[in-house]
Amino acid sequence: MDEFSFIDSIKQNYYRQSTLIKGIGDDAAVLSSSPEDIVTAVDTFVEGVHFTKTSMEPFFVGYRGLAANLSDLAAMGASPAFYLVSIVIPKSWSMEEIAQIFSGMKELAGIYSMDLIGGDTVSGKELSISVTVIGYVKKGKARYRSVAKNGDIVFVTGTLGDSQAGFHILTNPGVYLNESYYARRHQMPSPRVDFAKSLDRLPRVSLNDISDGIASEASEIAEASGVNITLNALKIPVADSYDQFSEDLQHHWKFYGGEDFELMGTIPGSDWAEVQKLADQSQVRITEIGYVTMDHENGNVFLEKNNEKKQLQKRGYNHLK
Amino acid sequence: MDEFSFIDSIKQNYYRQSTLIKGIGDDAAVLSSSPEDIVTAVDTFVEGVHFTKTSMEPFFVGYRGLAANLSDLAAMGASPAFYLVSIVIPKSWSMEEIAQIFSGMKELAGIYSMDLIGGDTVSGKELSISVTVIGYVKKGKARYRSVAKNGDIVFVTGTLGDSQAGFHILTNPGVYLNESYYARRHQMPSPRVDFAKSLDRLPRVSLNDISDGIASEASEIAEASGVNITLNALKIPVADSYDQFSEDLQHHWKFYGGEDFELMGTIPGSDWAEVQKLADQSQVRITEIGYVTMDHENGNVFLEKNNEKKQLQKRGYNHLK
Repeated sequence: MDEFSFIDSIKQNYYRQSTLIKGIGDDAAVLSSSPEDIVTAVDTFVEGVHFTKTSMEPFFVGYRGLAANLSDLAAMGASPAFYLVSIVIPKSWSMEEIAQIFSGMKELAGIYSMDLIGGDTVSGKELSISVTVIGYVKKGKARYRSVAKNGDIVFVTGTLGDSQAGFHILTNPGVYLNESYYARRHQMPSPRVDFAKSLDRLPRVSLNDISDGIASEASEIAEASGVNITLNALKIPVADSYDQFSEDLQHHWKFYGGEDFELMGTIPGSDWAEVQKLADQSQVRITEIGYVTMDHENGNVFLEKNNEKKQLQKRGYNHLK
Repeated sequence: MDEFSFIDSIKQNYYRQSTLIKGIGDDAAVLSSSPEDIVTAVDTFVEGVHFTKTSMEPFFVGYRGLAANLSDLAAMGASPAFYLVSIVIPKSWSMEEIAQIFSGMKELAGIYSMDLIGGDTVSGKELSISVTVIGYVKKGKARYRSVAKNGDIVFVTGTLGDSQAGFHILTNPGVYLNESYYARRHQMPSPRVDFAKSLDRLPRVSLNDISDGIASEASEIAEASGVNITLNALKIPVADSYDQFSEDLQHHWKFYGGEDFELMGTIPGSDWAEVQKLADQSQVRITEIGYVTMDHENGNVFLEKNNEKKQLQKRGYNHLK
């Protein structure tokens, strides 16, 4: 298959988004103007850094790659609409495997009626995939990290640490409880798009998605908002059989593991009942895990356990260290 | 420099585009709605495939990388507004070199008041840079490959083959005429944004940018429009000292060399005088190089020289062959 036949093979037969004027097939894609605000982000995944063929079949590489991007849109309260995929292909990957990567993305894109509207295909030594996503959010309703306030409740969706537990299981064969649950959480994470969107009726929500671990994400909200965040160690939600792993791994994965693509955020306490109702409607588990304070020094995250409180380091994955 | 300090270092102190609500610093960028249509594209550049440190200082890698994307927007008749940069960084590149890549992009972006609004920074074995651009075009005025018609004039901006001549000079040290002219054409190409935008008053223009060589680009217009295109070999514009290279190289570079980032297109003959005037105003050289016909079989490109006419093969650079 050459480059041009490959592009033909991934081109959609029809497009679903009403604002699309021109998809794949010209120098660029064209979208008609819309009354909503536009949200856009890009993420890149590299073989050997973000995944290996051992832990990820190509289909999942694609699924999870797009999921990470949709999670960014969810963290802004936006609905996904379009994606563009630029891929560097080494000789060690067959065109069938590459087609499976696109098929994994297409599976997730289908859930949200997203259209693949462009990209680039080049040769190289190392597989890397850059996904650009474009979504829409109601005018003025994008959700920022910078709006947390003194007295807010801190919440998180789902359970934490599952993705890293899944990676551990996939790369360390053995006997585990709920093996397929954890593997699936690693390979096919569910970005919390619908829940995030449903929050649009609330006046103020700070929001971040958990790609680098909750310690790092909470720190971003604390810094951007100029507040302190205290997390209650015993309230961090984990899966039922999570205690099958060592205490050390449990701690590391739930605070620093990342890639769960859950959402964390803060809201005024008076909106907590409403947020719980909306989470129920989106069938998303939601847990109150801490609170926001404003002190002399701000921008920190603390971990509270049995009346002891200490600072939580923010070491998420840092690519350049 | 760690990842977070690096992101801080490339973050703009202020943004220039009026539709920007949120740039770098949250999970995604946010743009307010605009009455114009939106145009978007992504291109990826890989060390060893698209450039080497021998032929390209890091500053030029960035400049040319963004230029290629702006050329795609120009080919749609759109004005550039935003860019996002996702970069895979190997250990063999210093952070200073990476900063120079961004500085090259910033130089070109400044000409068009573009804002850098997002991206991703990851480690890997091979330097690769994915640039996503977003631009605006007057409602309904995006320029497509598919609108060429029987009887149209075929035109091209600038001169062809210069970029490959520049690459040849940079990688084969020797004595050449106009050395710095050719090197500059390779390292700092000028996307024809202003000229393309000025065409918005014309009712019908088919347009393509020359990234893969005019043979391939003409073929794309011929196929998309269901017409045949005939190019006049003696009319293809080249630089003054272009005949210093062998006949073979001259032929190869001007038809298949690519990366000149000039524009080719077709218009009704009745608009030719107007297009010449607009090119003058944008200080862009423009040349009539052929004509469009509609025959029993279409989608082909022919080369005409001294009353002889033969089919021109479309072999541009194909990454997967």
